[in-house]
Amino acid sequence: MSRFWSDHVAGLSPYVPGEQPSDSNLLKLNTNEHAWAPSPRAIEAAKAAANEQLRLYPDPESDALSQAIAKLYGVDRDQVLVGNGSDEILAHVFNGLFRREQRPLLLPDITYGFYPTYCRLFEVPHQFIPLADDFSIDVADYLKPRTTPPAGIILANPNAPTGLALSIDEIAQIAQANPDTAVVIDEAYVDFGAQSAVVLLADYPNVVVLQTLSKSRALAGSRVGFAIASSDIIAGLLRVKNSFHSYPLDRVAQAAALAAIEDADYFEETRQALIAARATLSTQLKELGFDVLPSQANFVFAKHPAFTGEQLANGLRERKILVRHFNLPRISDYLRITVGTPQQCQQLISALSAIITTMVNK
Amino acid sequence: MSRFWSDHVAGLSPYVPGEQPSDSNLLKLNTNEHAWAPSPRAIEAAKAAANEQLRLYPDPESDALSQAIAKLYGVDRDQVLVGNGSDEILAHVFNGLFRREQRPLLLPDITYGFYPTYCRLFEVPHQFIPLADDFSIDVADYLKPRTTPPAGIILANPNAPTGLALSIDEIAQIAQANPDTAVVIDEAYVDFGAQSAVVLLADYPNVVVLQTLSKSRALAGSRVGFAIASSDIIAGLLRVKNSFHSYPLDRVAQAAALAAIEDADYFEETRQALIAARATLSTQLKELGFDVLPSQANFVFAKHPAFTGEQLANGLRERKILVRHFNLPRISDYLRITVGTPQQCQQLISALSAIITTMVNK
Repeated sequence: MSRFWSDHVAGLSPYVPGEQPSDSNLLKLNTNEHAWAPSPRAIEAAKAAANEQLRLYPDPESDALSQAIAKLYGVDRDQVLVGNGSDEILAHVFNGLFRREQRPLLLPDITYGFYPTYCRLFEVPHQFIPLADDFSIDVADYLKPRTTPPAGIILANPNAPTGLALSIDEIAQIAQANPDTAVVIDEAYVDFGAQSAVVLLADYPNVVVLQTLSKSRALAGSRVGFAIASSDIIAGLLRVKNSFHSYPLDRVAQAAALAAIEDADYFEETRQALIAARATLSTQLKELGFDVLPSQANFVFAKHPAFTGEQLANGLRERKILVRHFNLPRISDYLRITVGTPQQCQQLISALSAIITTMVNK
Repeated sequence: MSRFWSDHVAGLSPYVPGEQPSDSNLLKLNTNEHAWAPSPRAIEAAKAAANEQLRLYPDPESDALSQAIAKLYGVDRDQVLVGNGSDEILAHVFNGLFRREQRPLLLPDITYGFYPTYCRLFEVPHQFIPLADDFSIDVADYLKPRTTPPAGIILANPNAPTGLALSIDEIAQIAQANPDTAVVIDEAYVDFGAQSAVVLLADYPNVVVLQTLSKSRALAGSRVGFAIASSDIIAGLLRVKNSFHSYPLDRVAQAAALAAIEDADYFEETRQALIAARATLSTQLKELGFDVLPSQANFVFAKHPAFTGEQLANGLRERKILVRHFNLPRISDYLRITVGTPQQCQQLISALSAIITTMVNK
């Protein structure tokens, strides 16, 4: 450790994202990018914004984009905060909402791996709530009376890497039982089958919704995410954002994101295509003997009773297909497989079929 | 204050950037953007990167760009960290290097206004060192023996909003006198007339250099900055970066920045044009009676003995010209004026001349 590091740096546990290989011959089913391209209107808008005006700073508050998001969700402009990917917004949420003296953050034991990293970075005390044996979130765990209210609750809905979703009624129960606690619903994958908790904002001022354009809008390469919440929660997050970076979104990203939000038809078409591809993939995986969790996301979480997750992930890599395998308690036998195009899914199924046949015959 | 905010949020002092007006009829000489456009190669690269690959995450470590920066400055790849504007890198520096228990950060009383904001955000104790009466940094102030070494020293070179620069020898003296302290040199404006402290890295492992592509590369709209330091300081900053955001730079920004770094001829040409425009502007301001500090940046800091800064800034705004006026102790009589193209500078001089004539005749 360097003598120049801050005291807490050695104790951080940096997040390790899925591999982003430079080898374009690999089939990437490992980081849950959308199988379809972004809206052609988004690409055109990005090209158009790549002009001499890049010499000028962008709009610090991404106002046009924020307005469009507000309109899409039927909320006020001051209920929206845009950031450099939902990861940046998450960081501001941990910093701006979850640092509450002795009050702990509650989160599932199996969920997006960046959450514990933020807890370390911002020194947020936290308590893991185990998922049920079937990997669902047991809502009752979040309804229990506690001597001090938690600093916050964060739930990915659908959850990652399981793909399982809570209903709006279940989220409402959690929000109602914790009126003095920010209940943050990370909806990175919501458009693939779950319902957004934005509808709860009118009744529950403690609900905070996070979304990203990286998944259902197919703009992972543009880094755009947003929060929707009550105007006073957004005001707090804005104080943190403006103490961190005035201009988090560049000009091209703002333009691409705005066009993507406005292209409702393309969004719906590609969303439905993805959902159909997921259904086919799930069926075919089951036919190969996999246990497949019922996913509401653009990935499936599956295990094979006869093989370890590591065996299968390695076999796929030898066949130039990347999937995500987490070497963690409870889920090490599972693969998280991004839903590809029908053709890509077929390539995956063929490869898995070959791997299974080879192993069985050994 | 919302009952959902973290304990520290109400105490933050968010930075207020210069106005980014939507009215394109205004002449913007208020936020130190480059007067010339970005490299045509950068614009082409940005357009080319605005394609269907935007569905994929960007390279999390901006490797091609980082390699190009390392090559440009003759350092190793692992001595470079790229971020979403130098503001994001600054935030990581405050978090990753300056949080040292009871040890204070030293910084000038008049400098980039975001530094005290970061001190609040990351709870960094700090001590302001007053600039000399002529607004220069008195190096002797940073050489004094102290009972505990400071947590860090941060100096903008050239300083903002003064435009005055330290020499490399002066920075070396400060680095040498503080061997256990990170000495961070924020070189946002260095290419307009000062010398980069990168040359000191071989002898002083405590030096950290920050640069941005927003100024001399004319890419404020792309949000790209970088740090150059010893590999172990960069490793610490990387731990913070990867505890905050895996993918801070989008695909288009990485492509534009790489092309801008590689276009050495265009960089040199526009840099020299800016320096020449600054010389003319300074002369003409003096002819109008202004005191003009000798700037090494792409702005000048000037006051008129007969008028307040506020009077002049308001007069210019009425004539659709924006400059920056800081209503702060010691500098409230000054204007910080971005150097424009020769034509823009002429427009400014004409407007100031008219304002002065009108006021004198009142």
